[in-house]
Amino acid sequence: MRIVVLAGGIGGARFLRGLKKAAPDADVTVIGNTGDDIHLFGLKICPDLDTVMYTLGGGINEEQGWGRTDETFAVKSELAAYGVGPDWFGLGDRDFATHIVRTQMLGAGYPLSAVTEALCARWQPGVRLLPMSDDRVETHVAVDVDGERKAVHFQEYWVKMHASVDAQAVVPVGADQAKPAPGVLEAIAASDVVLFPPSNPVVSIGTILAVPGVREAIAEAGVPVVGLSPIVGDAPVRGMADKVLAAIGVESTASAVARHYGSGLLDGWLVDTVDAAAVPEIESAGIRARAVPLMMTDLEAAAAMAAEALALAEEVRA
Amino acid sequence: MRIVVLAGGIGGARFLRGLKKAAPDADVTVIGNTGDDIHLFGLKICPDLDTVMYTLGGGINEEQGWGRTDETFAVKSELAAYGVGPDWFGLGDRDFATHIVRTQMLGAGYPLSAVTEALCARWQPGVRLLPMSDDRVETHVAVDVDGERKAVHFQEYWVKMHASVDAQAVVPVGADQAKPAPGVLEAIAASDVVLFPPSNPVVSIGTILAVPGVREAIAEAGVPVVGLSPIVGDAPVRGMADKVLAAIGVESTASAVARHYGSGLLDGWLVDTVDAAAVPEIESAGIRARAVPLMMTDLEAAAAMAAEALALAEEVRA
Repeated sequence: MRIVVLAGGIGGARFLRGLKKAAPDADVTVIGNTGDDIHLFGLKICPDLDTVMYTLGGGINEEQGWGRTDETFAVKSELAAYGVGPDWFGLGDRDFATHIVRTQMLGAGYPLSAVTEALCARWQPGVRLLPMSDDRVETHVAVDVDGERKAVHFQEYWVKMHASVDAQAVVPVGADQAKPAPGVLEAIAASDVVLFPPSNPVVSIGTILAVPGVREAIAEAGVPVVGLSPIVGDAPVRGMADKVLAAIGVESTASAVARHYGSGLLDGWLVDTVDAAAVPEIESAGIRARAVPLMMTDLEAAAAMAAEALALAEEVRA
Repeated sequence: MRIVVLAGGIGGARFLRGLKKAAPDADVTVIGNTGDDIHLFGLKICPDLDTVMYTLGGGINEEQGWGRTDETFAVKSELAAYGVGPDWFGLGDRDFATHIVRTQMLGAGYPLSAVTEALCARWQPGVRLLPMSDDRVETHVAVDVDGERKAVHFQEYWVKMHASVDAQAVVPVGADQAKPAPGVLEAIAASDVVLFPPSNPVVSIGTILAVPGVREAIAEAGVPVVGLSPIVGDAPVRGMADKVLAAIGVESTASAVARHYGSGLLDGWLVDTVDAAAVPEIESAGIRARAVPLMMTDLEAAAAMAAEALALAEEVRA
């Protein structure tokens, strides 16, 4: 079975680990969000791609969900000693090496997809990890600070400001001009099922879908498209998805997110058992829905969620 | 007193520390060799400038003479795990931060001289440290390997090959097109004395002198120019200077190095006491010479050497 998964960072990565356990023989292609990529210290940093790579490759810091295990911070502390910032983005020494290799390869002319493949040659994530695009896409968030509207990089909004002010708009800058990376459309067209993990519907999956051709390819693939709600009991399982959902006028409920994707794209939707009451509303919007436990407390729970998603996909197919 | 010092790496840095102790009120401008700069991992590395900066700023690894104290090597070990080399150049985590800051500033359009000034704002070396040029100069060494002549970067010859084969030629690639960095010619013209520390006469001081205008400015400054022999008892005090001296047809003796600089450039020359017999030969070449202890075993010894150099300069001036 060929499975295509659109993934953001932590939620996507942990779901993928469950999927690999639930369907060990499946051929999995991951289309990773690059809208939260950021240039810091002259280096190209791809947080979501790295989180997937490190998580599936066994190098992730399990507690925080991002960054490397057994990490040290000598480079960061030296940069601070030079007065060179920003200091709010946590980059460890091991992690720096990844960004140095990536930046060097990009500087030598390799596209991000080739760089990602090279990095994965070490990590052996057991999936084919593709950036959504080799072109630069950068998600900016419009915020009002001291009565003035300004645009900040998504990482600044998320990591530095902790989404403490309302997002007035979320714009994937450059997405409209971006081309899907080599292999993205082909993988979708050849897939047997497409999954949306419980990743952020706006700044992760939404950004991937904003790359021209991706949404169309999924709709035209003619295979079951099944998602898992990142909202449980009207709140994001992790992160601050409610802030960016509000910016695009979508309620923070499992049902509203499903209807935001819409029946033109989504065939099936899993909500948490606490949201079982939302199932009829989602189904009345033309999306088959099931209520199952959606808390990825451990690998077993993630695998069970993946199995439920695949089961719903088969139900849709039949 | 305004002193200009042409400096390479370890020998130059340790001499400078002695000079600051011997002449604490002097206004010292250091013209640093950049011919051994190298690009590794997409980063611009300036070993000689950094050795001077770290040594005078109190950050040097005293035992090895280069690199940072309390160093760790997480980045290097991760780069190796990615299969990204080379692995023969010792770059620690703290050191990496310097190269990251430098590369970022260069990428933003700052010349190396401005970058060096910014880095020194942290280290406060107590001297004005100028790169010899903002233009790229890269010393290459021609070697015969397996019957074939090839050119290798000086660092590859020095650090990787340990100068284990003869140098057939030493070429400061780009030097003929390089311009002295802002302030270099002005500092020389305004100096009261110019010193050549016991740095490598070919790949350190020789490279600085290869930048068009520098040699002429020193000759025209009309101030005492005094050097210290890096050769003691017919062998380099440290490093493998004999290998690169041979490549330019100069014997590895204190006298031959003085005569290589020549009386058109050099007014005074200090040799070690073990080379006292060479003094007449040097003086007969028109260069005033003195035999004094030249082993920089500690700060006191280096300060004594600097004091002797300044004393010889005054003798020349009188």
